[in-house]
Amino acid sequence: MKIGMIGLGRMGLNMARRLVRGGIEVVAYNRTVQKAEDFAAEEGKNAAAAQTMAELVSMLPAPRIIWLMLPAGGPTDEHVDELLPLLSPGDTIVDGGNTMYRDDLRRHKAAGDKGIRYCDAGVSGGIWGLAEGYCIMVGGEPEVVGPLKPALDVLTGPGGNLHTGPIGSGHFVKMVHNGIEYGMMQAYAEGFEILAASQFGEDLDFPAICDLWNHGSVVRSWLLELAQRAFTEDRRLESLKPYVDDSGEGRWTVNAAVETAVSAPVITMALFERFRSRQDNSFQDRVLAALRNQFGGHAVKKRGE
Amino acid sequence: MKIGMIGLGRMGLNMARRLVRGGIEVVAYNRTVQKAEDFAAEEGKNAAAAQTMAELVSMLPAPRIIWLMLPAGGPTDEHVDELLPLLSPGDTIVDGGNTMYRDDLRRHKAAGDKGIRYCDAGVSGGIWGLAEGYCIMVGGEPEVVGPLKPALDVLTGPGGNLHTGPIGSGHFVKMVHNGIEYGMMQAYAEGFEILAASQFGEDLDFPAICDLWNHGSVVRSWLLELAQRAFTEDRRLESLKPYVDDSGEGRWTVNAAVETAVSAPVITMALFERFRSRQDNSFQDRVLAALRNQFGGHAVKKRGE
Amino acid sequence: MKIGMIGLGRMGLNMARRLVRGGIEVVAYNRTVQKAEDFAAEEGKNAAAAQTMAELVSMLPAPRIIWLMLPAGGPTDEHVDELLPLLSPGDTIVDGGNTMYRDDLRRHKAAGDKGIRYCDAGVSGGIWGLAEGYCIMVGGEPEVVGPLKPALDVLTGPGGNLHTGPIGSGHFVKMVHNGIEYGMMQAYAEGFEILAASQFGEDLDFPAICDLWNHGSVVRSWLLELAQRAFTEDRRLESLKPYVDDSGEGRWTVNAAVETAVSAPVITMALFERFRSRQDNSFQDRVLAALRNQFGGHAVKKRGE
Amino acid sequence: MKIGMIGLGRMGLNMARRLVRGGIEVVAYNRTVQKAEDFAAEEGKNAAAAQTMAELVSMLPAPRIIWLMLPAGGPTDEHVDELLPLLSPGDTIVDGGNTMYRDDLRRHKAAGDKGIRYCDAGVSGGIWGLAEGYCIMVGGEPEVVGPLKPALDVLTGPGGNLHTGPIGSGHFVKMVHNGIEYGMMQAYAEGFEILAASQFGEDLDFPAICDLWNHGSVVRSWLLELAQRAFTEDRRLESLKPYVDDSGEGRWTVNAAVETAVSAPVITMALFERFRSRQDNSFQDRVLAALRNQFGGHAVKKRGE
Repeated sequence: MKIGMIGLGRMGLNMARRLVRGGIEVVAYNRTVQKAEDFAAEEGKNAAAAQTMAELVSMLPAPRIIWLMLPAGGPTDEHVDELLPLLSPGDTIVDGGNTMYRDDLRRHKAAGDKGIRYCDAGVSGGIWGLAEGYCIMVGGEPEVVGPLKPALDVLTGPGGNLHTGPIGSGHFVKMVHNGIEYGMMQAYAEGFEILAASQFGEDLDFPAICDLWNHGSVVRSWLLELAQRAFTEDRRLESLKPYVDDSGEGRWTVNAAVETAVSAPVITMALFERFRSRQDNSFQDRVLAALRNQFGGHAVKKRGE
Repeated sequence: MKIGMIGLGRMGLNMARRLVRGGIEVVAYNRTVQKAEDFAAEEGKNAAAAQTMAELVSMLPAPRIIWLMLPAGGPTDEHVDELLPLLSPGDTIVDGGNTMYRDDLRRHKAAGDKGIRYCDAGVSGGIWGLAEGYCIMVGGEPEVVGPLKPALDVLTGPGGNLHTGPIGSGHFVKMVHNGIEYGMMQAYAEGFEILAASQFGEDLDFPAICDLWNHGSVVRSWLLELAQRAFTEDRRLESLKPYVDDSGEGRWTVNAAVETAVSAPVITMALFERFRSRQDNSFQDRVLAALRNQFGGHAVKKRGE
Repeated sequence: MKIGMIGLGRMGLNMARRLVRGGIEVVAYNRTVQKAEDFAAEEGKNAAAAQTMAELVSMLPAPRIIWLMLPAGGPTDEHVDELLPLLSPGDTIVDGGNTMYRDDLRRHKAAGDKGIRYCDAGVSGGIWGLAEGYCIMVGGEPEVVGPLKPALDVLTGPGGNLHTGPIGSGHFVKMVHNGIEYGMMQAYAEGFEILAASQFGEDLDFPAICDLWNHGSVVRSWLLELAQRAFTEDRRLESLKPYVDDSGEGRWTVNAAVETAVSAPVITMALFERFRSRQDNSFQDRVLAALRNQFGGHAVKKRGE
Repeated sequence: MKIGMIGLGRMGLNMARRLVRGGIEVVAYNRTVQKAEDFAAEEGKNAAAAQTMAELVSMLPAPRIIWLMLPAGGPTDEHVDELLPLLSPGDTIVDGGNTMYRDDLRRHKAAGDKGIRYCDAGVSGGIWGLAEGYCIMVGGEPEVVGPLKPALDVLTGPGGNLHTGPIGSGHFVKMVHNGIEYGMMQAYAEGFEILAASQFGEDLDFPAICDLWNHGSVVRSWLLELAQRAFTEDRRLESLKPYVDDSGEGRWTVNAAVETAVSAPVITMALFERFRSRQDNSFQDRVLAALRNQFGGHAVKKRGE
């Protein structure tokens, strides 16, 4: 099996490596061509680099399979627009980026109008995927997704890929997965802060507690293993800034909940805490302080309400 | 009518003034006696100062009415303990502080065991109470609360006092009132931040919007009038720190909700935002940052999840 | 002054009435023509009915002012599409519906391409607007909004209209206003439930408490006056179903917060409670019950966790 | 090693069984004595039943170890009160119930005044503990906790017990553990509802998605394994009622957060959703409906706000 990989960022490069090491031939293309050439040089005979997308297409046997691993939104659109005229009916594009599922529906239609197959793959795995295997959710028609199976099995560990349903469903399931992740992370974060703030706080050995909970407790999880690693490195995480980014999926999950009238307090509050973490002069808190001041007296902190 | 006032802090002093100016004789006592003497000197013939609680008791006609306006908890307990042996059966203690309602039940019983009457008064009004009248909720037996009516009517504007029910109910209703206040303030604060953060943010004239909403809109309120004052003084509140204290009532309201299995997301989130406003190195955010780092890569802010 | 009013639903009809009664001539059009004819018959010489939009346009002096009061989304789009070819450069369309502000920007551009002026008006007032005046926020160019002033002053009470900023800002400010309204309503709702669930619950006289709080307390507001009316009619609202609709503005406010990374827990939780109120067999609660069951034992309610 | 077990409820009985099967001699006492006799009969020579607490004490070698596995609060207090006079200095009481940590501090002092040792053990494990081992957090002095180690090692799997710190810390850590559990469960529950409510809802195979996520995804956990079991039995959980109990620990966790000024939105919202699940005629929703009605018109569901 031979596939094209477009986009050798953190995720794309490691996925290309895992494919090659698993016996899949990969032709790679990247805007900065040197990255593709380095990949080809490092990974040996099953890996090749293309200088252009046209060359990449020419280096693949028909029907072609081309996996995009690009930033969601504009970059993916640009590459798809450039790629479609180069492809032939029966070729398949797999969008493995963090794409908003509605974009899948739109691009699937645009591709389908030219006879090009299109499916979406939500990929989880972070920096652990290369060694341990990714977790991949694929949406699309069965005849499009089916032929990808050998590549998917290489990318994931056993049991780590699933054809979730029609086009868009892969990214949708991945999106909700990230929303759940936000909620779980926030649950642990609150729990550890409550522990740290308690009268027992100084005594508590967080790595030992993580390890304990991962032995027989109902909150055991991979995230808790990761927490144990973090607390082992730095017992109260003093070296870190309390700054938490969010990716699109958390926001889209909240939007999906709002759109379908589903109450999702935990996922939403977890997202809001991330927003909050990045503000150091919250406007809403100034409004609250001002209102207390107006009502209760001029010394903001001293006023009795 | 003549009553004793114990505690001349911000609230107590202004209430004593309003009583005197409304024709009620007031004997005042304060730990720092000078405050009581200043009050008596300023307010003239209807105002007197006592050097001790015993003197205060001796200066009042039986059956006595003594209004406590002290910090909740320990200080109120200490004064009640000292006061009870000085009083005679039929005398009445009114606790006007921000007391937790369970303490009222306990003190009511302790006083009742000695034949002393006890009632609780939740007082709202902030710095506006002296000029505009307080809003007072009173809990206790009808025969205890009834005789207070002339004093209550002076303290409040027309319609501004209510006998809410049995002992404790005054402070309980006042407590929930504060919980509602937290939620309303937070609703405005979020709304103004959403406005400020929007593409229209720079154009929006907040004092004008407050004024507008207070003319015919469903969100019109006193708090919005106060917001207008604040935004008029400082259009984006740049001069303020985003630091928001909380008083006991907000916490007790959440505890009451938890105890009676009532879902109270808005009041609770409003309280939590106040907690959050006072943290500049949130532990939970460091946990979140650490988990993202462990899962997604070492450059915390750059990691694609 | 003479204006056209398109859409005689609950809001549009009352606004047309208020305009006529305030001395503005109104030509009305409604898909169901009878409504316009009834309006003209009832309101007398300043009121007229048009059978078609073309007739409405012909009955107005140039430059025309046409106020749309239609359901947001499709119906407004359809009417604008039909209206634009009938108008002349310099005519003005005012969209007074509950339009999403992004639609204003789009329609403003489409109208501008034909030389037609377009502005947006967010209208608050409910069933009270006819008698007490509406509260109106208008977005658009000053030269478009300025000429509307006489009509706006009739529609609102004094101080009840404001030119908020550029096109879209009127609806945006109105949208956030509704978000704040959600939060405030939820704050009161939680507060009254905590009161009702407390040990004092049966004793508490809710209309009296509303009335009290509206005399001197910091939570006084129009909503609290409305609450008093509701509790006076039905002391514990036993006659009502716990079913709460939501309109688009609440959802859009949350979306705006998410889009601009503003933490808005109170407004969002208020929206979610409305979603929740309409579910009688919550899926997420079944998931929770199932998980407790799997972990703790088969008798779901008896299991000790 | 030989220990006394008081309380053969669901948890206590299985723990006694696991101890005996692991080579620890157990003398059991239960208010309903038959349960202890059944246990002794079933488990053979290492298991014995006592008819009274006094007999239980007499059947144990000094210094005695007595493990209480009773409902928190009153029942535990009653047994401790009855037990203390029967014990001798140097004996140890282990409270393994779901006790509020402040009760531990109180009882530890009362026991200490008589020379009796006291420690607290938070036990997680549900119905899986007997077969797979419990997870146990123990608080107390080292010289009290140390001698329990052989029994703890039998009760838990390897790595499943930890001496967390001073008296009370075991139950405190267990309490926070349960709070985290609430938040994680709610995160999954919301996620699955968002999936079910989406345009892809009908297509999605929930057991397959659980299984997938447990292979390489960051949300993998034991709870997700349990979710897979539940969805496998009933694909959309149609057979379940959306009714979710809560135990004391969730409430105490929220109270602890409030007391120490820690923002804990996710744990708290998870608790509130459980409260909400048990209401079928929410008072707060009726208040909301009433306010909408008062403001917007009489037909509650039809009124345009």
